[in-house]
Amino acid sequence: MSYVLAADIGGTNIRAAIVDAEGSILTEQRIEATLSEPGLSAEEMLQRIVNIVQPMLNHNIKAVGLGFPGFFRGTSGILAASPNLPEIKEFALADALRTAINIPVAAQNDALCAAIGEHKFGAGKDKQNLFHITLGTGVGGGLILNHAPWTGESGMAMEFGHLHVAQERLCGCGLHGCLETYASATAVCNRYYEVTNEQHNAAHIYQLACDGNNIAKDAITQAGYYLGIAIAEAIKLLDLHTVTISGGLTGAWPILHPIMLETLNKRLIPPLRNRVEILPTSLGDQAGLLGAAAIAQNQ
Amino acid sequence: MSYVLAADIGGTNIRAAIVDAEGSILTEQRIEATLSEPGLSAEEMLQRIVNIVQPMLNHNIKAVGLGFPGFFRGTSGILAASPNLPEIKEFALADALRTAINIPVAAQNDALCAAIGEHKFGAGKDKQNLFHITLGTGVGGGLILNHAPWTGESGMAMEFGHLHVAQERLCGCGLHGCLETYASATAVCNRYYEVTNEQHNAAHIYQLACDGNNIAKDAITQAGYYLGIAIAEAIKLLDLHTVTISGGLTGAWPILHPIMLETLNKRLIPPLRNRVEILPTSLGDQAGLLGAAAIAQNQ
Repeated sequence: MSYVLAADIGGTNIRAAIVDAEGSILTEQRIEATLSEPGLSAEEMLQRIVNIVQPMLNHNIKAVGLGFPGFFRGTSGILAASPNLPEIKEFALADALRTAINIPVAAQNDALCAAIGEHKFGAGKDKQNLFHITLGTGVGGGLILNHAPWTGESGMAMEFGHLHVAQERLCGCGLHGCLETYASATAVCNRYYEVTNEQHNAAHIYQLACDGNNIAKDAITQAGYYLGIAIAEAIKLLDLHTVTISGGLTGAWPILHPIMLETLNKRLIPPLRNRVEILPTSLGDQAGLLGAAAIAQNQ
Repeated sequence: MSYVLAADIGGTNIRAAIVDAEGSILTEQRIEATLSEPGLSAEEMLQRIVNIVQPMLNHNIKAVGLGFPGFFRGTSGILAASPNLPEIKEFALADALRTAINIPVAAQNDALCAAIGEHKFGAGKDKQNLFHITLGTGVGGGLILNHAPWTGESGMAMEFGHLHVAQERLCGCGLHGCLETYASATAVCNRYYEVTNEQHNAAHIYQLACDGNNIAKDAITQAGYYLGIAIAEAIKLLDLHTVTISGGLTGAWPILHPIMLETLNKRLIPPLRNRVEILPTSLGDQAGLLGAAAIAQNQ
């Protein structure tokens, strides 16, 4: 039996797992490691990844896959840039790691990995095309077209969280009205705080909504409404039939889904209506990790 | 030397041309023919097309390509539906015409044909990916991804004219704020009429703008502004580098292009800025016709 080592690299921790060919996770670790330190050089970052990955390797592990928060050049494993690591440009991350640990390595954008995981093992399994959305602190996603990841010409496709859905809120990117400021878990928490002056995480706000708290329900409904608006724009361009969503906010699916689907269909031209299904991830919080496993398996 | 017969089918007329392998047009005809008659059956429509195409055939013509205002199932030549011909559903147009005239036939959506023409012979020649916009009575377009036409899962991709760019104007589709109501040649004429009570075509309005008429200039500038907004949404999703535009309003390029490009870059997240070029068609009004020729050549 052959296995791969999959790693989902975040700003302050790395999740790493040994995964078999069917996408079953044998062991999983979460390791604290700061990789979003301003000024960190490519070599220092690489060394930190090596330090974590190397001890987990054994002779049954045939390849390593990395999901990384940055823009990659196609499927080359070259990290063009990473918003949190301004010093690093055009770094051949996969090649450099392969040289260091001496087994095949693949690396790809973390949100695109989530799409790949969902397509290979999850709710979008075997769909020819998939529009995958990640709903967490931010809103991102990945696109699968004709069974292949779509990276875009600069590795920056699916900046879905920055679709323009309203006028008001200022986004971290400097623009106003980005979807992310209305539909991320953070946005739901902010919205609840604005009205109540109480700070809770999205899971707790969902629980409050289930218990009959209308302010909590409205905060989640607003997220679903703006998601519906943004998904409509994507469908009008690409005419896809399957949307999947992963990330913490999918815990609020019973409130999120109906308003999202209703708004989507209202905002489509009539012939496009009622063709799209929106599904929650079937992989819990492991879509990204399993996508990293899938790109490793392709090595 | 082998040739193809290309036909661009409109509601009230058909343009047909004999085209060589390099995309040169040998002869072209414009024939009046009503194909958007409500109640027209598939068989009647087919017969009208046969009546026009058959007399133009000769033994040097190896295939026929049709650009048709409707939704096609992939590259099968099956017309799923056509907004102007509500009686016709799932009609195997290419196969039926091939049976009638006994040479290979390809058929595809007319706006996608314009994209194919631009990609094969025009301003987007040999680009791996192309986002093509048609600016005429309406706003449409076609998408080329990895050198192949992207039809969408229901043949309805690139309903670009129905991206939502504002709140106010009511579109023919029943929604408010569609790009088409702000950026088509019709929209430019309407805008000028609203302010001046004078009716002119878009070419004349452009001439007035060149002569210093600020109302005319503003009407065209508004179209460019909203085009920039809508193109930004597409680029945030797909991260493409080349946009081409065909259609009558490209005649106003010196006014249209600067505002469009400026707005596009303002509305992109910073890392996506200044990567996209927007080019006018190099095929005049023949992009659709040459796209029909290209799909015939592929037969």
